[in-house]
Amino acid sequence: MGVRSIGIVGLGLMGGSIGLSLKKLYPQTSIVGYDHNLTHIKEAKDLNLVDRLADNIEEIWQCDLAILAIPVDSIISIIKQINNISQNTTIIDMGSTKKLICDSIPDAIRSNFVATHPMTGTEKSGPTAAIDGLYNGKTVVLCDVDKSGEHQQEVVKNLYEALGMNIIYMDSTSHDQHAAFISHMPHAISYALANTVMRQEDPKSIVALAGGGFRDMSRIAKSSPVMWESIFRQNRINVLDSVKHFKQELDAFEKMLNDENWDGIKKWMTDANSLHDIL
Amino acid sequence: MGVRSIGIVGLGLMGGSIGLSLKKLYPQTSIVGYDHNLTHIKEAKDLNLVDRLADNIEEIWQCDLAILAIPVDSIISIIKQINNISQNTTIIDMGSTKKLICDSIPDAIRSNFVATHPMTGTEKSGPTAAIDGLYNGKTVVLCDVDKSGEHQQEVVKNLYEALGMNIIYMDSTSHDQHAAFISHMPHAISYALANTVMRQEDPKSIVALAGGGFRDMSRIAKSSPVMWESIFRQNRINVLDSVKHFKQELDAFEKMLNDENWDGIKKWMTDANSLHDIL
Repeated sequence: MGVRSIGIVGLGLMGGSIGLSLKKLYPQTSIVGYDHNLTHIKEAKDLNLVDRLADNIEEIWQCDLAILAIPVDSIISIIKQINNISQNTTIIDMGSTKKLICDSIPDAIRSNFVATHPMTGTEKSGPTAAIDGLYNGKTVVLCDVDKSGEHQQEVVKNLYEALGMNIIYMDSTSHDQHAAFISHMPHAISYALANTVMRQEDPKSIVALAGGGFRDMSRIAKSSPVMWESIFRQNRINVLDSVKHFKQELDAFEKMLNDENWDGIKKWMTDANSLHDIL
Repeated sequence: MGVRSIGIVGLGLMGGSIGLSLKKLYPQTSIVGYDHNLTHIKEAKDLNLVDRLADNIEEIWQCDLAILAIPVDSIISIIKQINNISQNTTIIDMGSTKKLICDSIPDAIRSNFVATHPMTGTEKSGPTAAIDGLYNGKTVVLCDVDKSGEHQQEVVKNLYEALGMNIIYMDSTSHDQHAAFISHMPHAISYALANTVMRQEDPKSIVALAGGGFRDMSRIAKSSPVMWESIFRQNRINVLDSVKHFKQELDAFEKMLNDENWDGIKKWMTDANSLHDIL
């Protein structure tokens, strides 16, 4: 990849997992971690997620490649504080929203920065959730790359290819619209489903009756509220739009069920089945 | 289990899978299959799901144990046609709804019948979806068993224990209320989500951006429309009630997002997280 040192800010699921993979991929490269949470630091140390831990965040900006694996609101705060970096430094974020982040990158570091969104994760969070292989075989979206330096684009391409990822390119506005429908709104639905069932059902019935369908549909309702609050905050308008569309579909089902329109319901389910041709 | 012959009506996912497991568990017992779909018969034969195929359904009623693994509407039609069976014959259904089925069992065969709902399955259907081990480690609900004969209760208990299932007992009215919240409404949500995304997004974006969350949440939208139409038909009132409750949760989220009530959204997600303590 041509970098001698990699710094990771945030040693949770995303940062810890990339640390584990990069240590294996680049044994000659120094992988330095930073986290503002003392428990995370201790866990990251015990789990050997990085080669060493930085005493302060300035050490990260001295690395050839700095990876921001923190909630999207924190990305915006932190990039405003970066200064005094080399022209060859590459900085990437891995946030689930892209438009506000891209708009917030200071001009002084714009060519250093590459905005990325690896489409991977689990419902778990923190250093103990980190797993090697989290990125392998998944897609990563690179946004507004024409504003990143050529060297930086090359570093990031090499990084994600080495991790076994499929790279796609998109402008940050389109990314946030698509991500609202395919990722953010489904998370809101999962949270709503979990709350509905827990408010209406006793734990004993839930455990007894939960089949694979409910387990799969409620899994991401266990995701971190801190992380998701900031995603919903940054992609608020698109998420409201996608929720509106989802509610129209559910209302259509409710009306057909109320009217006992079985032909309509069967057609509606058959339409949904066609997802099978894609995924 | 004390039965010499087992008949299975319907050789799809549920019937085919139980056939495979019973052939292994009871090599001395004759496992006979019946299906009204000629393609299913051919597939079941090729896949060796049962020992032999019956020429007509009457052969199934001559078995010591008859298993109805067909859509819930078909269960109600078929049980009205059963007659001339031995006092010791056991008949079970495996439908996802229980109240209307229990109410439809003719008096003449009421003690022969045990109403059951194995909480297992996949989004796939038909004989080719059958897998050995589908039942192992899962829960099965037995409903209104006080109306079943003692011998029949014993046969069914032995059957499901042999399959490695955890048996729970419930009245059919309660079953249908719980199943609406924990299984039927989540299926409606998955169908609605799949339709929303497919109507708003192009296939290329869906494939590129779908992470584990969306894949899990849309998986059961691939389920059989024929099977689910009859479930929604039979459990219509409870499903309407559960959809109403779900919409209240989603409306609450939408309002908080619209009002930028971030503390409210964080608390709402933290409430949903507590599902983690149960499942």
